[in-house]
Amino acid sequence: MGTLDKLHRQRIQYSIISTGGYFLVYILNNKSPIPLYAQLYQQIRSKVLCGKLHPGTKMPSSRKLSQDLCISRNTVGMAYDQLHSEGFLVCRARSGFYVEDLDITGLQATPNQNSYEPMRQETEPETIHYDFTYGRLSPKLFPFLQWQRVTNECLRSYKEQMVNYGEFMGERGLRREMLKYLREYRNIQCSIDQLMIAPGTQHCLMLAGQLLKTSTSTIAIEDPGFSGAYFTFTNQGFRVQPIPLDHHGLKVKALSTSNTKAVYVTPSHQFPTGSIMSITRRLRLIEWANEQDAYIIEDDYSSHLRYDVKPIQPLQALAPERVIYISSFSKILSPAIRVAYMVLPEKLARESHRLTENSPSPVPFLIQKPLELFIQQGNWESHLRKITKYFKKKHDTLLQALNQEFGDTLSISGKNAGLHLLLQIKWPMTTEELVSRAYKAGVKIHPTGKLWVESESSPHTSILLGFGGIELGDIPVAVRLLRKAWLD
Amino acid sequence: MGTLDKLHRQRIQYSIISTGGYFLVYILNNKSPIPLYAQLYQQIRSKVLCGKLHPGTKMPSSRKLSQDLCISRNTVGMAYDQLHSEGFLVCRARSGFYVEDLDITGLQATPNQNSYEPMRQETEPETIHYDFTYGRLSPKLFPFLQWQRVTNECLRSYKEQMVNYGEFMGERGLRREMLKYLREYRNIQCSIDQLMIAPGTQHCLMLAGQLLKTSTSTIAIEDPGFSGAYFTFTNQGFRVQPIPLDHHGLKVKALSTSNTKAVYVTPSHQFPTGSIMSITRRLRLIEWANEQDAYIIEDDYSSHLRYDVKPIQPLQALAPERVIYISSFSKILSPAIRVAYMVLPEKLARESHRLTENSPSPVPFLIQKPLELFIQQGNWESHLRKITKYFKKKHDTLLQALNQEFGDTLSISGKNAGLHLLLQIKWPMTTEELVSRAYKAGVKIHPTGKLWVESESSPHTSILLGFGGIELGDIPVAVRLLRKAWLD
Repeated sequence: MGTLDKLHRQRIQYSIISTGGYFLVYILNNKSPIPLYAQLYQQIRSKVLCGKLHPGTKMPSSRKLSQDLCISRNTVGMAYDQLHSEGFLVCRARSGFYVEDLDITGLQATPNQNSYEPMRQETEPETIHYDFTYGRLSPKLFPFLQWQRVTNECLRSYKEQMVNYGEFMGERGLRREMLKYLREYRNIQCSIDQLMIAPGTQHCLMLAGQLLKTSTSTIAIEDPGFSGAYFTFTNQGFRVQPIPLDHHGLKVKALSTSNTKAVYVTPSHQFPTGSIMSITRRLRLIEWANEQDAYIIEDDYSSHLRYDVKPIQPLQALAPERVIYISSFSKILSPAIRVAYMVLPEKLARESHRLTENSPSPVPFLIQKPLELFIQQGNWESHLRKITKYFKKKHDTLLQALNQEFGDTLSISGKNAGLHLLLQIKWPMTTEELVSRAYKAGVKIHPTGKLWVESESSPHTSILLGFGGIELGDIPVAVRLLRKAWLD
Repeated sequence: MGTLDKLHRQRIQYSIISTGGYFLVYILNNKSPIPLYAQLYQQIRSKVLCGKLHPGTKMPSSRKLSQDLCISRNTVGMAYDQLHSEGFLVCRARSGFYVEDLDITGLQATPNQNSYEPMRQETEPETIHYDFTYGRLSPKLFPFLQWQRVTNECLRSYKEQMVNYGEFMGERGLRREMLKYLREYRNIQCSIDQLMIAPGTQHCLMLAGQLLKTSTSTIAIEDPGFSGAYFTFTNQGFRVQPIPLDHHGLKVKALSTSNTKAVYVTPSHQFPTGSIMSITRRLRLIEWANEQDAYIIEDDYSSHLRYDVKPIQPLQALAPERVIYISSFSKILSPAIRVAYMVLPEKLARESHRLTENSPSPVPFLIQKPLELFIQQGNWESHLRKITKYFKKKHDTLLQALNQEFGDTLSISGKNAGLHLLLQIKWPMTTEELVSRAYKAGVKIHPTGKLWVESESSPHTSILLGFGGIELGDIPVAVRLLRKAWLD
């Protein structure tokens, strides 16, 4: 009776109850926050599941058990009721409760809860002072007070919507505001039923994949390109075909031989090279899509951020029936609000209604409505102006610092747009070494390994510097540190 | 010259410029909010795309064109730069800009923007006074002030996270709080790496589908059951196999013959019948999963809402390596915040990390962090107590009203739990007629057609009454109206 010895030594109160010829130990603690009936239920339940209470055993009557355990009869009744509801006990008329005939052989031994090695937690070493990771934004640019105001307005004035499922394509009000913006600023023409709100670009890509699945098993992507597209399509079971680029953009000729009916492109600002797809290439791409009855997925990820000329007009405006247009608020407002959107060709929009009409929009009302109010009240336009100006300053500062520190020992592509520059290093050093040397100097940079699908297409060692997150004033110091780390 | 006549009559200022032997009309309006250079860019661009400016045409010099149009030379320069960036114009040294040789035959005629018939907008007729639709909640129960407080706290104190991408499995802080809750209230044991936050139950189901795709092409579901599961799996390309129920729950024997390796069940409170899967059936289901190396997807959608006994313990606690456990905040807090969660068996958790490590969580930080603070500060527990009490009151009132008005002309299943009752009508009347008669009387009810996959398995006409949204005081009146509409 080792268990009892232990209980004795630990001064734990217990009762021994004879049931079906066996003695069973019950420990009921009335100082525990768990109610007594729940403790009793739990202990009978586990005795059944581990085989200590055999199938067919007659349970003591609630009167008897309550006396033996010194608890109220009602408490035993509640435990028995629960066990009966769940099927552990069966009730025989005028006789009482019996243990159900359960086959417990299928139950695993209680698994070791700590056997699963936790994933690496990515913690920054304290030495990182400057961060060029792409995708970060500076907290200085988020309109915290305005966002607080529109959120509170939403919580005050839209109570009914705050407790119900929303529209499956996204809130109509937000889509109406987006439509005006897309018409005016991006020359995009579509009806409200072609516009869908989604929680991120990759969610849009996944929906696009679902819509295209019936017509193609291969999707072409740019190489180098956005790894999120590669992974999303691969996870959906598509064969992903990398297509090389030249300075006009995607090589449409290579596309023609690839036997696909869908291609993912970033024509306004190719990721990561930063080139603009020329109108010649755009027209050839559209011609290809028309001939093949194919679709072009256009990711306009940094749509607005152009510092030399006007933002480049999207492909969608040229071929609305061939282009699935995707963009998001992640680069211009915040990636933490999780709002992206897509404009679908009419035919696919109809199909998407069929696909999604049974599932509510995954984007919370408490994000969609504040965003709608934010746009409607003119904050979005002023934010756009402010942020474009500020990013241009950062861009110019970074470019100047790079020229000053490195001269022509590196070449820079992707100038005058977006939130990153792509550097090609002209001295012999691997990406790993560049990254680790920078890291030791307290500077984090974004490695570009994942951007190339076919490694041979990367001629030089490339480094991507994102400037969304780093503070303006820190840029010259950070670049100087990079030069010292890499060249001294 | 019909165009010019029209411009004349409408008193619109225009200029005619000779280019490459042709006369082209330009309309520049300096009262427009669109800058002059953008207007000029747009007009040259469309003339190229519609073929009015031929390939190879030499453009007027910026000096000449600015004089002819009476605008600054800089304005023309900016328009030309933009056209050059996008590839409409090519630049020849010491000669100027020429129209690129573009093949525009692939461009479609501008599509009719209104050709796409908009989807039906679901507007409630004004006559609906009482709404028994399932899935609605009453705004009285959402903690608006507390939510405002935690949201503002998040915006004030977590600025850095508000502008960055979050952890792909969901915020660690929220998952830590969830883990404590799941351990204490649902007897669920798992590590933090097995717990994933997602924007809704259907998103969880979709992820489960992605994880199971390699091992099975068929997923079994309960019939009748949750239509969202049916549609999600069907859209992913699975064959969905409906399995009949008896009062113990899913018939495992039928499952054994179906050659599937995954089954979706709602064991704590079967949707829509409301029955509890008995422990006998649970053990057989686990045995089946062990034998077949299969997975059980457990949807614990109304986990906490039990009004007679304690909440029923999940299957996950019995077989953590066989069960994908899913639940959400939609039924207990709000469906508009879009937070659900899933607990994965270790093996699938590892696989899910591989699947999702390249995509940020689709649930906004501005929802996850406030929810974490809400739980951490004890508001969640008190909300749970309050809401369970209130729903029990609604449930009892509805049950009483139904007994009073209908007596034994209908049978009621799914008592004592969740947010709905299932009525089986014993007089001859179709669902359509029941719904439309109720509608005319100002009462909206939830039709159950979509719940049965194989129609023959529904023996009676069934009606689902959701009581989450209707106000407590309105229940007796609404039920009286139903009786009058159906029986008088």
